[in-house]
Amino acid sequence: MSASWTREHHAAQDFVASSCRPEHDEAGLESIEKAADRVLEETGIRFLDDPQTIDMLKQIGGVASGDVVRLDGTELRSIIRRHAPAKFLLRGRNPARDTLVGASAPPVFAPIYGAPNVVLGNGKRVAGTRQIYAELVAAAHAALGLTNTGQMICVMEDVPEDRRPLEMLLAHLIHSDKPFMGSIASPAAAEAVADLTAAAVGRPAAARECNLLHLINATPPLTYWPNPLKCLRAIALKGEASMVSSYMMMGATSPVTVAGALIQGYAEVLAGLALAQLWRPGAPVVMGILAYPFDMRRMLPDFGDPASQLVQHYAAKLGRRLGVPVRGDGAITSAKVDDAQSGAEGGRVLSAAVSSGAHFILHATGWLEQGRTVSLEKFHRDAAALAELGHGKPADLPMHLDHGIEAEIRGRLAQS
Amino acid sequence: MSASWTREHHAAQDFVASSCRPEHDEAGLESIEKAADRVLEETGIRFLDDPQTIDMLKQIGGVASGDVVRLDGTELRSIIRRHAPAKFLLRGRNPARDTLVGASAPPVFAPIYGAPNVVLGNGKRVAGTRQIYAELVAAAHAALGLTNTGQMICVMEDVPEDRRPLEMLLAHLIHSDKPFMGSIASPAAAEAVADLTAAAVGRPAAARECNLLHLINATPPLTYWPNPLKCLRAIALKGEASMVSSYMMMGATSPVTVAGALIQGYAEVLAGLALAQLWRPGAPVVMGILAYPFDMRRMLPDFGDPASQLVQHYAAKLGRRLGVPVRGDGAITSAKVDDAQSGAEGGRVLSAAVSSGAHFILHATGWLEQGRTVSLEKFHRDAAALAELGHGKPADLPMHLDHGIEAEIRGRLAQS
Repeated sequence: MSASWTREHHAAQDFVASSCRPEHDEAGLESIEKAADRVLEETGIRFLDDPQTIDMLKQIGGVASGDVVRLDGTELRSIIRRHAPAKFLLRGRNPARDTLVGASAPPVFAPIYGAPNVVLGNGKRVAGTRQIYAELVAAAHAALGLTNTGQMICVMEDVPEDRRPLEMLLAHLIHSDKPFMGSIASPAAAEAVADLTAAAVGRPAAARECNLLHLINATPPLTYWPNPLKCLRAIALKGEASMVSSYMMMGATSPVTVAGALIQGYAEVLAGLALAQLWRPGAPVVMGILAYPFDMRRMLPDFGDPASQLVQHYAAKLGRRLGVPVRGDGAITSAKVDDAQSGAEGGRVLSAAVSSGAHFILHATGWLEQGRTVSLEKFHRDAAALAELGHGKPADLPMHLDHGIEAEIRGRLAQS
Repeated sequence: MSASWTREHHAAQDFVASSCRPEHDEAGLESIEKAADRVLEETGIRFLDDPQTIDMLKQIGGVASGDVVRLDGTELRSIIRRHAPAKFLLRGRNPARDTLVGASAPPVFAPIYGAPNVVLGNGKRVAGTRQIYAELVAAAHAALGLTNTGQMICVMEDVPEDRRPLEMLLAHLIHSDKPFMGSIASPAAAEAVADLTAAAVGRPAAARECNLLHLINATPPLTYWPNPLKCLRAIALKGEASMVSSYMMMGATSPVTVAGALIQGYAEVLAGLALAQLWRPGAPVVMGILAYPFDMRRMLPDFGDPASQLVQHYAAKLGRRLGVPVRGDGAITSAKVDDAQSGAEGGRVLSAAVSSGAHFILHATGWLEQGRTVSLEKFHRDAAALAELGHGKPADLPMHLDHGIEAEIRGRLAQS
């Protein structure tokens, strides 16, 4: 980094200090944006193995050298502000379950995403299966506080990897009529799931309406891998939504300070959010800047640390300045069992997300053990707490899935 | 309430809805103020058995009928805004431990206040004693995250009630040199403790400096009891600080809705905060509006409910509009043991207080069982979490207390 870099960094550092500033302090937030602009301009972002992305970024003035593109932050913000919707309607099979995402809409809550292990209600610890997945979707449907049944609540270890996107889709469509999240296994999987979900929802989408939200992760520091880039493009072209997130381990994949993590994360998501708008102006997006300290002794992230809650606080403010909905995390924890540590860490993270004004809160139920495990017991405890927030609707049995669509998905699975 | 009352109430109700609105929405906050003004003007506040208070309020236009005074909210706000400091310095015996309270200063944390029962480190449950009190003050001193050792951390059940204020004072002065809170046992006790503390701190107080913060509670609904009124006056005249709080049980001592509780609580604290300024313009004050749903089945308040966190969120905004520091609660819970419920409820309340921008956070460590119990184990767990916030200073042994002051306090105790 250049010698003068410290000036921007220090301004951001002085601003975030170590407390939440509730007052509007646009100058302080601008110091983070300016520092991120220096990162984008002088260091750039690495876009791995996706020439289409690099060509597109060159068209808006990006300076490519190999797979690194140096970018103009002001231009990226201007593209996002011009096109990205401040809120959009995420639709379910049941129109009564449609949820607004963004602006002053209440937060949408979705369960844990990506757990390989499951702790069953009887305390038994098992690998995720197709059968358990169905039960988790049914539990998410029944949970008053969850307004989205998510995606990959656990990993279906008993299903070959290429079949999982459609198997998960089937579970979300059969066992619930709430909105859920899309597949990012591959661009082809994302497209297939989007088309089949659109058929199941069965209502044409107006502007600012879609059926699926997809988790598009940058790979900090300052990198996007090929699959997320290709999925982001495919999803935008389908008119579906992407939650562009930077999930940083402070001290490992980002600077260890709150200010440093915010600067890096903001630079990363600016690039992704602008790309979505370049592929399809008006594409619904959600911005996520999340950072957890990395514990060097245990080589694991430390969930529940207040530094992360400061990152969330300022990330939400940066998102509001940008005019896009913001992501938060739910009751996430480093605890191995659902004890006082689990409760306290999860309670603090969830409350910080809600207080920050986050619009889509992922990992809201069931998360244990750094997210490697979904616990049925915690799933229900978290869901009960969310229900108290009062945003959900009473759980009915899901609307029956159209036979033709179920047959179509089963037919494709039979061929694969 | 008059027929037209619903207009103001509905405006406030529509504003708070059931989510945190992070955007500045001054019109919405004004709707709460206006509704509170109606309560003050049409219903008034009951000031029990304290003619001096009623006389003073008449001088600013209050209309008294018996012990109820109907008041002009605009006038109360104008008095508070004109005189109350936005921040003040709360001083300890050790100048390095002085803490700013208010504005953009980081939150001050104090331990649980008022617990009759103690759960010791070995799990044994006992009544509070003088010996345990000393140990709790020492623990609060050693806790990096606590920047105030509070008051009545437990009740000294083995000490006659009239001796407790000086016994507690002695413990806070001997076992710590951090700032702490004053006595509200009686106006005489408040004055004696204030004088002795001033001698122990030993530095003359400039404007916006004091040595003690006192918990002055309204008694909802819309009532102040005589002792808090007399203490408030004595404390203001001594130049010490008062934390004027309305601690409501929603559905029992306040309306059950967030909007209703905010309206009532704001009306209550406006009166107390203005009184402090009338007794002594510039008296340091902190505003507290706290409300917890009352569980009619168990006849106990329900700590950790998100409704309370909304109250905290808007209370902090109302306090900022008023220009005074704001109170929050720490890791409080209804749980009987320090389990996942305890962690989650406490974590959510603490995080909401910090996120709201609260300046003085009471009950930050040790609280269990609706506050009837201080748990040593939870005290240490909570303190460790606070330490991560990074506002505290390393714990040294407390500065030695001046022998003359110790002798003076012991002499007074010997005479009583």
